[in-house]
Amino acid sequence: MVEMSIDLNSDIGESFGAYTLGMDEEILEVITSANIACGFHAGDYNVMMKTVGAAKTNGVGVGAHPGLPDLIGFGRRAMQVSADDVYNFVLYQIGALYAFCTTRGVPMQHVKAHGALYHMANQDARIADAVAEAVRDFNPDLVLFGLSKSALIHSGQKYGLPTASEVFADRTYQPDGSLTPRQEANAMISDIDKAAQQVTDMIFAEQVTAVDGSKVHIKADTVCVHGDGPRALAFVNQLRTCLPAEGIFIRRIGD
Amino acid sequence: MVEMSIDLNSDIGESFGAYTLGMDEEILEVITSANIACGFHAGDYNVMMKTVGAAKTNGVGVGAHPGLPDLIGFGRRAMQVSADDVYNFVLYQIGALYAFCTTRGVPMQHVKAHGALYHMANQDARIADAVAEAVRDFNPDLVLFGLSKSALIHSGQKYGLPTASEVFADRTYQPDGSLTPRQEANAMISDIDKAAQQVTDMIFAEQVTAVDGSKVHIKADTVCVHGDGPRALAFVNQLRTCLPAEGIFIRRIGD
Amino acid sequence: MVEMSIDLNSDIGESFGAYTLGMDEEILEVITSANIACGFHAGDYNVMMKTVGAAKTNGVGVGAHPGLPDLIGFGRRAMQVSADDVYNFVLYQIGALYAFCTTRGVPMQHVKAHGALYHMANQDARIADAVAEAVRDFNPDLVLFGLSKSALIHSGQKYGLPTASEVFADRTYQPDGSLTPRQEANAMISDIDKAAQQVTDMIFAEQVTAVDGSKVHIKADTVCVHGDGPRALAFVNQLRTCLPAEGIFIRRIGD
Amino acid sequence: MVEMSIDLNSDIGESFGAYTLGMDEEILEVITSANIACGFHAGDYNVMMKTVGAAKTNGVGVGAHPGLPDLIGFGRRAMQVSADDVYNFVLYQIGALYAFCTTRGVPMQHVKAHGALYHMANQDARIADAVAEAVRDFNPDLVLFGLSKSALIHSGQKYGLPTASEVFADRTYQPDGSLTPRQEANAMISDIDKAAQQVTDMIFAEQVTAVDGSKVHIKADTVCVHGDGPRALAFVNQLRTCLPAEGIFIRRIGD
Repeated sequence: MVEMSIDLNSDIGESFGAYTLGMDEEILEVITSANIACGFHAGDYNVMMKTVGAAKTNGVGVGAHPGLPDLIGFGRRAMQVSADDVYNFVLYQIGALYAFCTTRGVPMQHVKAHGALYHMANQDARIADAVAEAVRDFNPDLVLFGLSKSALIHSGQKYGLPTASEVFADRTYQPDGSLTPRQEANAMISDIDKAAQQVTDMIFAEQVTAVDGSKVHIKADTVCVHGDGPRALAFVNQLRTCLPAEGIFIRRIGD
Repeated sequence: MVEMSIDLNSDIGESFGAYTLGMDEEILEVITSANIACGFHAGDYNVMMKTVGAAKTNGVGVGAHPGLPDLIGFGRRAMQVSADDVYNFVLYQIGALYAFCTTRGVPMQHVKAHGALYHMANQDARIADAVAEAVRDFNPDLVLFGLSKSALIHSGQKYGLPTASEVFADRTYQPDGSLTPRQEANAMISDIDKAAQQVTDMIFAEQVTAVDGSKVHIKADTVCVHGDGPRALAFVNQLRTCLPAEGIFIRRIGD
Repeated sequence: MVEMSIDLNSDIGESFGAYTLGMDEEILEVITSANIACGFHAGDYNVMMKTVGAAKTNGVGVGAHPGLPDLIGFGRRAMQVSADDVYNFVLYQIGALYAFCTTRGVPMQHVKAHGALYHMANQDARIADAVAEAVRDFNPDLVLFGLSKSALIHSGQKYGLPTASEVFADRTYQPDGSLTPRQEANAMISDIDKAAQQVTDMIFAEQVTAVDGSKVHIKADTVCVHGDGPRALAFVNQLRTCLPAEGIFIRRIGD
Repeated sequence: MVEMSIDLNSDIGESFGAYTLGMDEEILEVITSANIACGFHAGDYNVMMKTVGAAKTNGVGVGAHPGLPDLIGFGRRAMQVSADDVYNFVLYQIGALYAFCTTRGVPMQHVKAHGALYHMANQDARIADAVAEAVRDFNPDLVLFGLSKSALIHSGQKYGLPTASEVFADRTYQPDGSLTPRQEANAMISDIDKAAQQVTDMIFAEQVTAVDGSKVHIKADTVCVHGDGPRALAFVNQLRTCLPAEGIFIRRIGD
């Protein structure tokens, strides 16, 4: 019997100066991979140090979470950046996080782009290549996270990186495999059983049922979860119960 | 016969976005160690990539030049930062530069703090320790630059780092070994022969003649030079002629 | 019988981008003057617009709350700024807030410097003069807030500005009239009755009992209150009950 | 005989901290309207104060030059901003500049958006409306600058603002009245006589000859000139000679 496993990743370390965001301590106890903000869209040097240490304590895989240089917009606004810009600011942010990893004695496991940069890299091969090249040039053993079947995963493969295809438990899918935009009524799955079932199907059948009922091929290496409130946390805890009951181990991507 | 040598270091990579500062191309041809701004007080990710590449092309030793988080003040204004702040933002900046070094295949040679951070670290053991610990924790082979006989050099030695004592050719010294403050009339040495002679004395006699005529013990491993104009450049070129004529090789600190 | 009154002021509008700070809605219901962050140490253009509107809705006096250009340090770290810097960045921030006031049809009532800038201006006549001059040059009808008996109040008077002497209900005082530093054990007054009594004494007797039992002359035009949590809010509400019971009206400074 | 006149506007005050950009002193002697950067894409509070003063000394009309919050990209990169964002950050920047104007006793004359914000506002009615509303709400007497026949000019008229249609002397036009993109071979007009002739035709005939030879209707109230080098300056000086020779007075837009 093939043993199935899945990684649970979440964005953390998004506090900044006097501002606190997220429930990092709680979420670190239930995820397997942490995407740590690197000071451009969120996070700062003090938060990074603390967060790398907390991830280590919890045995969670540490990843760089580079974003656009837009603190006020939390990196969620698309910007017209050149491929050189992307390559250079991704490298900069990976390096910055690496300093805390090496000091804390934690290997860096992966890189996941943030917000608008993630969306741009999933759709635009030019941006995807810039991200993948920066990761490859820094350390070709880093796992590149991207949406399943995206330009970003394609670029990662092209540059010889290990990749992790990301799926969502609580979002519905379109027939082309993309996520239903958040503003649409049926974008979210609030029923935890349905959400867990969606993940189970993705892992065992390598497919997801789109909003029109069609079956779409999908690859699921890691599930994106949130840590921005008690409800999000409860959702992750339920996933951690449901998935193993279906025979799916929760295990960090680097293991 | 003992062979004497000296390093010539300069701050470069201080341009930012649309703003150009300094004559980096010209100064890289005449110095042996480059202190590259890391994006906090000056420099940005694009400038850092370009500058690391240019330093490599010229065979110049690459160093991180971390500064206070104060772009508008160019890192020249003292700030009330904690030792933890200093440790963490020095680490962050070293890591960021490291990413460009590793990508370009250039070893990082040294770390020199910038502006107000440098002054604070030279005088305040608490700040000096934070800088030295960050460097040691990142890579204990990095050479720590500091003013000759400063708290920073002392901290570097305490944490087992190789250190480089920095002297100035064009500044006068006080009887206690400190630099004469810039605002005083006799702070600068504009006569290049006197400046070269001062460096020669520092190297051969390990002493400098203070403004009151007294002799002060000093150690000279590297001379700080400027690249902010044609006159500064001419000054370096003259040093490069005068010093070898006295039997002092110009050689980068890491060799 | 002389009618006594006091203003209650609080810092608000300190959220930034995706980051929320403070309980602005609740605190606006209980204070009479709002010190609105202007985007340097906290706040942003969207938050400022919203906060000016909310202050208007609640009939609260609107003040500019300029701070040091240090978002990551929340304006709490002293910086070595020149008097020209202070004059210019205080003007800049007042003007920025003025734009929202004029658009919302709200007169600007006062200016209170934030954090380290406030402390510097209370102690250093050079900084105090720069703040007061900027306020006077923008609009000499603005009320300048400062610690009772500080350099800042002195500068305000010197430049012909109306001033408001600020006192604290929940902090103890030293024999010289300064606040007991926060790190000392007896710095805070947690007993609400004692706190209200302290304010009552300040208003009626124009004096405060220092930690050594001595009586210190003090002027109380406005009490600084906090809105950073439910406990702070409860404290304000209790003040709003206790003070009128002693015959002290709670009324905004500009009335 | 109808007397014809034209305004010459230029972006100035773009220096920042230790960084100097442009030849502000020289350009202020030859233009009639100055677009002063407000600290988001360029400029800082010290530069703004100095620049407003220099514009006053030269009798040049002062305008706010608000840009996107993107110092590293000099405001030249399109960002996905909401209409509320635009309204609020344009207001913020106008207010900030207003503080220096009122202190220096200089009336604010106009508002010209910068870089990517200008392009977005010229093409996108939603952004144009947000800019125009912010200007109208701050002061409906301010002249709104926009490309001739753009969405921005249209919004200005819709909100009852005086508008100034901007043309370029040194750029070629497409048959639809838009500028030929800079990357195309025939985008620039380097021959000063041709450039002056283009402006003369725009003013007298209200038309410009497009790159395909067709005649396009255009309105010319102000000519955009540059101050970023000696060559740009020479170009303006030649315009100042050629245009009056054709009977066109050079006069600031507010007169």
